[in-house]
Amino acid sequence: MNDTVLTYIEKNRDQFLESLNDLIRVESISSQPAKKSEVLRCADLEVKKFREIGLENAARVETIGYPLVYGDWLHAPGKPTLLIYGHYDVQPPDPLDQWTTPPFEPTVKDGNLYARGSSDNKAQHFSHLCAIEAWLKTTQKLPINIKVVLEGEEEVGSGGLDKYLREHPELFTCDAVMISDMPWLDKDHPAIAYSLKGLDYFEIKVKGSAQDLHSGLYGGMVRNPLQSLSWILSRLKDESEKILIPHFYDDVKELNAAACKEVQSAPFDAKTFAKEIGVSELVSEEGYTPIEHNWTRPTLDVCGIWGGYQGVGAKTIIPAEASAKVSIRLVANQEPKKITKLFVDYVKSICPTGVSCEVHVHSEAWPVFVDRDHPFLKKTAKAYEQGFGKKVIFMGQGASIPVVATFQSVLKVPVILIGLGLPDDRLHSPNEKIALANFFGGIKGAALAYEALGE
Amino acid sequence: MNDTVLTYIEKNRDQFLESLNDLIRVESISSQPAKKSEVLRCADLEVKKFREIGLENAARVETIGYPLVYGDWLHAPGKPTLLIYGHYDVQPPDPLDQWTTPPFEPTVKDGNLYARGSSDNKAQHFSHLCAIEAWLKTTQKLPINIKVVLEGEEEVGSGGLDKYLREHPELFTCDAVMISDMPWLDKDHPAIAYSLKGLDYFEIKVKGSAQDLHSGLYGGMVRNPLQSLSWILSRLKDESEKILIPHFYDDVKELNAAACKEVQSAPFDAKTFAKEIGVSELVSEEGYTPIEHNWTRPTLDVCGIWGGYQGVGAKTIIPAEASAKVSIRLVANQEPKKITKLFVDYVKSICPTGVSCEVHVHSEAWPVFVDRDHPFLKKTAKAYEQGFGKKVIFMGQGASIPVVATFQSVLKVPVILIGLGLPDDRLHSPNEKIALANFFGGIKGAALAYEALGE
Repeated sequence: MNDTVLTYIEKNRDQFLESLNDLIRVESISSQPAKKSEVLRCADLEVKKFREIGLENAARVETIGYPLVYGDWLHAPGKPTLLIYGHYDVQPPDPLDQWTTPPFEPTVKDGNLYARGSSDNKAQHFSHLCAIEAWLKTTQKLPINIKVVLEGEEEVGSGGLDKYLREHPELFTCDAVMISDMPWLDKDHPAIAYSLKGLDYFEIKVKGSAQDLHSGLYGGMVRNPLQSLSWILSRLKDESEKILIPHFYDDVKELNAAACKEVQSAPFDAKTFAKEIGVSELVSEEGYTPIEHNWTRPTLDVCGIWGGYQGVGAKTIIPAEASAKVSIRLVANQEPKKITKLFVDYVKSICPTGVSCEVHVHSEAWPVFVDRDHPFLKKTAKAYEQGFGKKVIFMGQGASIPVVATFQSVLKVPVILIGLGLPDDRLHSPNEKIALANFFGGIKGAALAYEALGE
Repeated sequence: MNDTVLTYIEKNRDQFLESLNDLIRVESISSQPAKKSEVLRCADLEVKKFREIGLENAARVETIGYPLVYGDWLHAPGKPTLLIYGHYDVQPPDPLDQWTTPPFEPTVKDGNLYARGSSDNKAQHFSHLCAIEAWLKTTQKLPINIKVVLEGEEEVGSGGLDKYLREHPELFTCDAVMISDMPWLDKDHPAIAYSLKGLDYFEIKVKGSAQDLHSGLYGGMVRNPLQSLSWILSRLKDESEKILIPHFYDDVKELNAAACKEVQSAPFDAKTFAKEIGVSELVSEEGYTPIEHNWTRPTLDVCGIWGGYQGVGAKTIIPAEASAKVSIRLVANQEPKKITKLFVDYVKSICPTGVSCEVHVHSEAWPVFVDRDHPFLKKTAKAYEQGFGKKVIFMGQGASIPVVATFQSVLKVPVILIGLGLPDDRLHSPNEKIALANFFGGIKGAALAYEALGE
């Protein structure tokens, strides 16, 4: 590689950071209708930055929701085309009183940049724009063809991108997709993810009497919806963390011995991890370590529960109804709709007499699995190792990015999931941050990866 | 009986109702500090009414909480002394938008008087003041000695009365306590209750991580507090409605065959009852009918549950904690503190690893059991039969009035629980009402009962 590219990156750290801060100051909260003008302002600012760094055809692409931002540079004939994806929208900053610095005023402290959207996803996708700038400003060209697509609805379900991608796949034609929107394993282990979980999300409602009843006058005669809900939830998963829905595991493939060994040897210290999040110990499905369970096995979690009296003191009622929200994370080979049917049928089959039970399906998303032996992944790992100055490992991911499955199924190309975040970046929480070393290392890694992918 | 008493009652219905409405218009909500002056105004109004009807020594009696209202007439030497108890405080009227008439503007419609506090307890205790007035205005005397004690904190735990009663039992010395603060079995069956349930009320809190965790990044590694709470609650009671706490039933006495038969032959139609409250069927402990369970067996109900995300849509978290409120109604011979220990020990013993579990004891109250063969109860039943023009039955009660157990244990006299309410009076709910026929019949019944108890 032309050393001038890396030198340019080194010399322009302050300017990169300032330019990133321009983006972060825009309150592009896609879930809040009152912030619509801010979301659109962010899209326009991205278009401006695309043009400044030398991307061509830079423009807003209108969708049924917030616009995509598109730009490309396609003057490397015979070289692969890389599609870089990111998102310019952010989560709401609430609860505001827990922030120690203003959420939309980026603040550097102890080597971190604090702000809503810093790690998720502005710094992570902006690292690519900086890398492209470094190449184009110093060499007037890129070592491969590049398309950049940003969306403004990642935090609210990617509705616009999903539809546009299915209807206009030609805009996205490429040889690989690269996404920087995930964390490292820990601060010493940058990682490329080879899998993402699928996600089914349900709401269960158990209904009893027409209104709350006095627990004395009616106790012993009426089925209690809260008690009934607890019976239902207790039969979804047992204390060995095994999911009890019949046929739930039918399509799950066991890892082969080599893969098992690799996962088990991941640099992960359960005790330290438990201490960091404030639990007495980690738990996992019987027969699997916590990391095996999180990376390679489906999970089921009750995300919310409510019913009856939640105030101070005592109120003696048999509540009329109770509800719970349940998420199921799926692994490769599990089909979201098939799992939905198993879940709904099972919940209805275990609903006690005397109450009724409804299940609402909120969302269904496919899991993602990438061949970790693909040369693109290996080349990317090597490039980022140089950028970060640390060895890059391969890891499974317990989380989900639904649009990645859409990229896979529509474009049928490998997806390279290389993140700059750290597990303690507090995504979606107060005091979100990104480590500056990861941001600057990511710029170098990206610049080196483009070159490697062209070789 | 001097017929002039009954004639007086018949002729003064309008005046009785107007005088009752004076009391009802006072917003004596004991749980709301902002209504303190209204609660005190109600106490003063009761004192005024005591004096008007001819009770002596009428006065507010100060306690650690709201005052008692006391009055007596003790000029029947050789005759028994009856202590009549009631309460002048009421529940809050919320939710206001569900009332069809203003809650504190008593409204007569279809033979009912609608207002907050109408059935609970103003009309019920005021029926005794009307009966006393009828005796004293027509004959200048009562057939027995009578003390009337009202409290202003029944809806918030009776703290003031409880302490005062234990420290000054001499004020309450009597041969029997009479309380009108409960419903009939149904509109055709006035009832004397021979039992009240005890009540233990708990709050369980299950704690996991220091803060909510992303259900993807941490799923499969961390014990879920909501799932854990559902396991715990599911092990408190099974689907046969049997309570699973070890040794819970040890002190419960089975009814003898005759009592069993009596309970089973109570005029109660399960299908009609189920339809009225909007459930598909009644359920009860295996081996017991619903009415047996409600009257004679302990019950356990989850009264509230909460944790994690309760808003619209999906939020994928492993919540940091989950809570539930649980009430246990006890029957004769069960000791509240012993049951508390069994409950707390059991809940802690079934708390899963990886989370911690706290149990907060809100309250403990003793059950009440009255010898239904006591002559006072038989005489009262007969008197009220004449007053109501309907046969009075004996019934168990699923509900609790904690101060009754205190009366029993301090005064060691029989307690006569004769109510004027109906099961659909909507106590503590919008559109509370009392049937006027029950109020006026209750006045006659009381007047007749005082005479019968003196014979």
